[in-house]
Amino acid sequence: MISKEQIKYIRSLHRKKFRDVNQQFIIEGPKMIAEAILYAPGSLIQVFGTEAIQEKLPEHVVFEEIDNKTLGQISTLKHPQKQVAICSYLPSKTTRSEFYIALDTIQDPGNLGTILRLASWFGVHDIIASKETVDCYNPKVVQASMGAIFNVNIEYLDLKEAFETTESPVYGAILEGENIYQKDIQRKGILVMGNEGNGISDDLLSYITDPITIPKFGKGESLNVAMATSIFLSEFSRPRL
Amino acid sequence: MISKEQIKYIRSLHRKKFRDVNQQFIIEGPKMIAEAILYAPGSLIQVFGTEAIQEKLPEHVVFEEIDNKTLGQISTLKHPQKQVAICSYLPSKTTRSEFYIALDTIQDPGNLGTILRLASWFGVHDIIASKETVDCYNPKVVQASMGAIFNVNIEYLDLKEAFETTESPVYGAILEGENIYQKDIQRKGILVMGNEGNGISDDLLSYITDPITIPKFGKGESLNVAMATSIFLSEFSRPRL
Repeated sequence: MISKEQIKYIRSLHRKKFRDVNQQFIIEGPKMIAEAILYAPGSLIQVFGTEAIQEKLPEHVVFEEIDNKTLGQISTLKHPQKQVAICSYLPSKTTRSEFYIALDTIQDPGNLGTILRLASWFGVHDIIASKETVDCYNPKVVQASMGAIFNVNIEYLDLKEAFETTESPVYGAILEGENIYQKDIQRKGILVMGNEGNGISDDLLSYITDPITIPKFGKGESLNVAMATSIFLSEFSRPRL
Repeated sequence: MISKEQIKYIRSLHRKKFRDVNQQFIIEGPKMIAEAILYAPGSLIQVFGTEAIQEKLPEHVVFEEIDNKTLGQISTLKHPQKQVAICSYLPSKTTRSEFYIALDTIQDPGNLGTILRLASWFGVHDIIASKETVDCYNPKVVQASMGAIFNVNIEYLDLKEAFETTESPVYGAILEGENIYQKDIQRKGILVMGNEGNGISDDLLSYITDPITIPKFGKGESLNVAMATSIFLSEFSRPRL
């Protein structure tokens, strides 16, 4: 049976401070747990659920049955999804592929989660993020990533240092940039996406070698950063003549 | 001064039933009100705010100062944004441009709002939506549209009837469709996007003349419908060789 201490511990993982201390985070629902089993089975530690999950749990994982009330207590969701599981932080990798994304102060958890999901779909294995970017283990980020948290490597660092040492193109999403549809681009280098309200920070602009933009065909002030990322990743991935 | 009846009335507009009866909806915050002034000034009826808005209100619009507590009562947001305004339903148009979007049972308000914003950006003036699609005047849709609700025409109808009478291509987003990057497409016809979980309904599939898909370059089960819409609209809008 789940103890009061365990409930308290899982609830503490709703907060970054305690996640960092314990190097653990939570995921919710059968879909997320299936993704963890598929991509990072070693990370999955314990599953608490009102129903056992359909997928076979790795041998080291303990399943603990709980009632709906307890599920409500440990879940971060308005409508809890049958299970909450504890995972250990994912191993971080400091080598990067030829093409990767840099996030400058992305603050909305939904946006970061969506960008992780897009990166996964488009085969971008690595993301670097400024330290002001929302925590990737934030439950909202994890859920919005739809499991992509398990197959995209995200590292928080000083973007300046990363930009200083690269010799590849640094593409930056900037309103006055070059039309992405006309620009000669290659899937090599860094794609920098800036903050939701303020774009790329002034002190990073000088590192952008290739400013790019999505031209507007209609009205509207701007595209949301996740939308823009989807279109840029599509452009960097699609064949070009 | 705002009366109790007015507070009650505005709160009633949080619900579709009362919006439909009164043919009015609410918008929140200086940005949305600025968009209303820009694109649909006749629709704006009354503004309630803790601060006057910077833009000049059309002459027929009454501004009523309220305190923070009252703002909290009439707002739908966790963090209210200074003003709540009442707007009348927007005039609906039954003629459509050469290229438009059909939404089959999009249920998430954030997705519909984002699709409206994308349509606005990419100059798609018209959307038709199945009657099961979330209400476009839902406050979450309106806010997520970032004002696009005022410059994109959305009409709820029986999609079957619309598809039966068109002679243009009906493009449908379907996992097994043709690779959008390789397919010869034109910005003419209908782009059909299906439900978040189930895709396009079985009974509409026979109307799809051109099934299309976004190829996967990495992992992941699917793209969110708003992400997919952004990539399709980009493909239908960008120049092609």
